[in-house]
Amino acid sequence: MPAQGLVQDELERVEVLLRARDPDQHEVITAEVERLLAGGGKRLRPMLVLHSAHLCAADIEKAIYAAAAVELLHTATLVHDDLIDHSPVRRGVHTMNAHRSPGTTVIAGDYLFARAAFLASRTDSVRLMRRFAETLMTICSGEVRQMFDGHSAGVTREDYVRRIYAKTASLISMSSQAGAALADVRPEEAGALEKYGDNLGLAFQVVDDVLDFVADEEILGKPVGGDLRQGLVTLPLLLFLEEEQEHPAVLRAVDTGMPAAVNEAVSAVASSSAIERSLEVAREYAEQARAALDVFPGSRHRDGLLELVDFAVQRSF
Amino acid sequence: MPAQGLVQDELERVEVLLRARDPDQHEVITAEVERLLAGGGKRLRPMLVLHSAHLCAADIEKAIYAAAAVELLHTATLVHDDLIDHSPVRRGVHTMNAHRSPGTTVIAGDYLFARAAFLASRTDSVRLMRRFAETLMTICSGEVRQMFDGHSAGVTREDYVRRIYAKTASLISMSSQAGAALADVRPEEAGALEKYGDNLGLAFQVVDDVLDFVADEEILGKPVGGDLRQGLVTLPLLLFLEEEQEHPAVLRAVDTGMPAAVNEAVSAVASSSAIERSLEVAREYAEQARAALDVFPGSRHRDGLLELVDFAVQRSF
Repeated sequence: MPAQGLVQDELERVEVLLRARDPDQHEVITAEVERLLAGGGKRLRPMLVLHSAHLCAADIEKAIYAAAAVELLHTATLVHDDLIDHSPVRRGVHTMNAHRSPGTTVIAGDYLFARAAFLASRTDSVRLMRRFAETLMTICSGEVRQMFDGHSAGVTREDYVRRIYAKTASLISMSSQAGAALADVRPEEAGALEKYGDNLGLAFQVVDDVLDFVADEEILGKPVGGDLRQGLVTLPLLLFLEEEQEHPAVLRAVDTGMPAAVNEAVSAVASSSAIERSLEVAREYAEQARAALDVFPGSRHRDGLLELVDFAVQRSF
Repeated sequence: MPAQGLVQDELERVEVLLRARDPDQHEVITAEVERLLAGGGKRLRPMLVLHSAHLCAADIEKAIYAAAAVELLHTATLVHDDLIDHSPVRRGVHTMNAHRSPGTTVIAGDYLFARAAFLASRTDSVRLMRRFAETLMTICSGEVRQMFDGHSAGVTREDYVRRIYAKTASLISMSSQAGAALADVRPEEAGALEKYGDNLGLAFQVVDDVLDFVADEEILGKPVGGDLRQGLVTLPLLLFLEEEQEHPAVLRAVDTGMPAAVNEAVSAVASSSAIERSLEVAREYAEQARAALDVFPGSRHRDGLLELVDFAVQRSF
């Protein structure tokens, strides 16, 4: 897509930074980083950083470091998430916890956090580094909330939005605001990038949660129904329960996570109107994200950010 | 001790920062932070940061943030260490992994890393923040090395020093160098603080490793023999094996970690000359640390740093 082509050279430099080997780095870490990065990933966050930096006329050398830092931070959170959720596969590749010990997975994730913070420090921007730390605090707070409060049919729409903001939108928004952190921009421009990022992030996660019910498993790279198997209540399920509060299989799936109940519940939700209504919610967030960019004059990089909104809501993986 | 009294007011402000509650912080995190800090701890690293900052005429407001940041980073690494080692008790208090799920312990540790990085950002010093990230990389690399390469009777003295540098001396040294990171000092002063911190850190960990054989368990706050139970080879054992290469119980303890063999090996090492020879190594490092400070003129804060060396080698816990 053009949003990618426009920053292709810079993305390739981000890949080099992601794979750069610290002199003191243990071979096990190197092998695991290689495996993690080989799994691919959309590099959405680096693209957001780079377009945002161009839009704000920020120093692109620094933005390349920021882009690598956010992608590595994202990767580190996935390593620990997969460990906690006992997920065997991500992006079609075995997770680290599936073929290494829990201890190795904890420490390798910590190492990636540290290396991400180091890359962030290469921007020489205290502002960006502080946002980086705050975002990780938000993500972890959200995880703890999910762990203790996310697993019941009593979850409200407000709880859900708060949770997906922490889990996904916070880092996508930080990435979108990187240009404003690295350059001096007008407050309304900084505010616009924040509004863009927050809404894009929410749209992105709602679509993720829809895909967890309806995706082609081959394309998704992992089995569907994962959230429900974890007992996690997401928007499609919330909207389904608003219409059918007493659906026995769905309630049993939320309560027990039993495979038979989960499979039945996934089918029930996937074939209901809750899917289309969830996508409508995602499209509303997407529209808010697009509208936020109106404060910027037309440019290729503004178009890049607009295109990433389309990608977030139209993707099938 | 005077080293503490001299910075007592500042240490109290560090405690307030350590306990400050983020607005978005989940009650489980708050409760766990409270428990972790209530366990006490020597606050060696904050004291090092503060004396170093005074010695370098650095901004003390910033040093207080740096001191809280290093202590919280240290705490976060202990949380993950105890999880990995399945340690039930530290400083006489149940560890987080002993009364929370592994998942909660992983995320709570991550949260503490993030909050530590946030506190570091309050120094407004990119230099200090970068050192902070690099130090965490070193610590994690050391942990991975320990996990994969630290458990055999074939460990050399060089392997051991490299490992304890990563595990302990790197953060103690970073703390000792905080003043130089926060102020403009002459290169020989920066170098002196690095030499001081490296040697103090090595002395401190050697004494820790001795105490793991000979401490009063009541005062230590955990059972002795923990390293050997984990199959970890430390200096007292290395020096013991230099004299008695074929001691059956010790070799069996290293190979199997079986309780009976560990108990017998701990007794054998504890009553051998390897203890005194290990302490002699610690005293040599301590002497190097003291000598490094000769480049600074006499002052109360230089005396504070000298006193912390005495503490490191004379302590019983």
